[in-house]
Amino acid sequence: MISTASALAHPNIAFIKYWGNKDQDLRIPANSSLSMNLKELETRTRVSFDPSLAGDQLILNGIPEEGAALQRVSKMLNRIRNIVEFNTFASVESENNFPTGAGIASSASAFAALSCAASSAAGLSLSERELSRLARTGSGSASRSIPEGYVEWQAGTDHDSSYAYSIAGADHWDLVDLIALISKEHKETGSSLGHTMADKSPIQGARVKDANRRLEICRKALLERDFTVFADIVEQDCNLMHAVMMTSDPPLYYWLPGTLEVMRAVQIWRRQGLPVCYTIDAGPNVHLICPAKEADKVKRELGSFPGVKSILECTPGGPTHLLEPDFPGV
Amino acid sequence: MISTASALAHPNIAFIKYWGNKDQDLRIPANSSLSMNLKELETRTRVSFDPSLAGDQLILNGIPEEGAALQRVSKMLNRIRNIVEFNTFASVESENNFPTGAGIASSASAFAALSCAASSAAGLSLSERELSRLARTGSGSASRSIPEGYVEWQAGTDHDSSYAYSIAGADHWDLVDLIALISKEHKETGSSLGHTMADKSPIQGARVKDANRRLEICRKALLERDFTVFADIVEQDCNLMHAVMMTSDPPLYYWLPGTLEVMRAVQIWRRQGLPVCYTIDAGPNVHLICPAKEADKVKRELGSFPGVKSILECTPGGPTHLLEPDFPGV
Repeated sequence: MISTASALAHPNIAFIKYWGNKDQDLRIPANSSLSMNLKELETRTRVSFDPSLAGDQLILNGIPEEGAALQRVSKMLNRIRNIVEFNTFASVESENNFPTGAGIASSASAFAALSCAASSAAGLSLSERELSRLARTGSGSASRSIPEGYVEWQAGTDHDSSYAYSIAGADHWDLVDLIALISKEHKETGSSLGHTMADKSPIQGARVKDANRRLEICRKALLERDFTVFADIVEQDCNLMHAVMMTSDPPLYYWLPGTLEVMRAVQIWRRQGLPVCYTIDAGPNVHLICPAKEADKVKRELGSFPGVKSILECTPGGPTHLLEPDFPGV
Repeated sequence: MISTASALAHPNIAFIKYWGNKDQDLRIPANSSLSMNLKELETRTRVSFDPSLAGDQLILNGIPEEGAALQRVSKMLNRIRNIVEFNTFASVESENNFPTGAGIASSASAFAALSCAASSAAGLSLSERELSRLARTGSGSASRSIPEGYVEWQAGTDHDSSYAYSIAGADHWDLVDLIALISKEHKETGSSLGHTMADKSPIQGARVKDANRRLEICRKALLERDFTVFADIVEQDCNLMHAVMMTSDPPLYYWLPGTLEVMRAVQIWRRQGLPVCYTIDAGPNVHLICPAKEADKVKRELGSFPGVKSILECTPGGPTHLLEPDFPGV
């Protein structure tokens, strides 16, 4: 008997970053982090456990995948198969509504959607907390894509205590994430590998030690909708992560000249009174965060940068959820 | 009676950086540092203690200066007047052979030349170590411009124990510093102010704590002329200083898009086998360090960058010394 389920998940943008693990295998992070789901970006994933299959299959955006990508999916499926104690292989079809290779991290939404769909197809009915833990084992930041809106991932110390929860709904604060896509010219180090290198930097320990201070300032600013405090701490936290990356051995450089150009412009605009700040993940794109009513102005300003290929506009998104009965088109 | 002396000093480029003080007033640094004097860049300074003067005077590159610049010079002169116990004011004339405002830090050579000329004009005959301590009180990195060639500044814990000494002569290793002058568009925070902000970064403590490890690797690589080891540690140390700057509160950003462009190119060239590394001070210019025989190749490569205005080529320089009887032209 074929057992199928589909799920939808959003990627998220971290305001307080996750970088480095206490436990690489379980992805227990070195520090707690805080993020916002991105409503307009979606991953839809269908999982079918099918007794006729001789192995797991993965189709990403219509293209069959093997090797490392399939292995990482199989590892998640194995975790679920171990829980329900069966051995049926699965076909996994997954689609993103955002361009791949644009530098929008898709592993968070991918593993959030996969863990939700696969656990359901396997007959499990997991709580949000259980789902967040499960998603974390596939991709750390996927744990944050499970709950809705503004989400905190408490680092915890083991599999049970490391999970994410919503600290405010998507409608709490109408922040906008304008993702400035910066022209790329090189292949980056994937963030899974990067996390394993974090401890090679002489400042990772200090970054982690200071993380709860930053998290508390950021959480409070977010709950009070205090953009001034929010902006400063988000940029400091971002710079700290990139500082660790650039001082690892070997160093990881994610900023391009166009990245720095936008970072500098954001600083100037904010000094001139425009409430906007930046944050940057393990890639060259700059996420410009601002209140919704300022988004048009920020987009106009950004439009003059030759290094900016295009802009994606995102608002706070909901939780990962099942699609019933099946989403059309896959 | 007018008492006059003149001195010549070179600026220096630090391979292991000085950033932050244990004692702001005496400029006792948070960590030891290591540098190379830059032979082709010179500051020439004449000091005349003149009983007819009603106050200290400063002429920088032919232009009379007042305000903060004159006050900083008077503070150094006061220190010397206190030692010799007299109250005569001085006229100070100083010239650099390199363009001011090009982002070449001139305070190191300025205070090295000033302390040498002024102490001599005041009738003092200071040892190199005493001169290094004295220069330090005017500008921390000036202490490193006193001895010759490759210089280590031991942080120490007080005025007596904080001074610089040569660890290798200028002819020990024929390194070249190609200074890529990056087009500027903004005024930076001066490094004197920057030093006072270092402790505002949550990672300054970790940078300082790790400094002796870096210094020892760098010193050993320098003494053994091991460019591969030298390059990695010089870049890591530079990135650590800029990481502290960018995570201070408020943050200090010195990199421009053109800075990052050259940094990235240097990384690629080295991976391709060209022995060259970068280091960057509190400004946007990139110092490309390479063995002399590679300098022409590096200059050719740099020539294709539109963000690079011009290139200064420097080799290891000698110590600060008196000019006898007086240097011509001032």
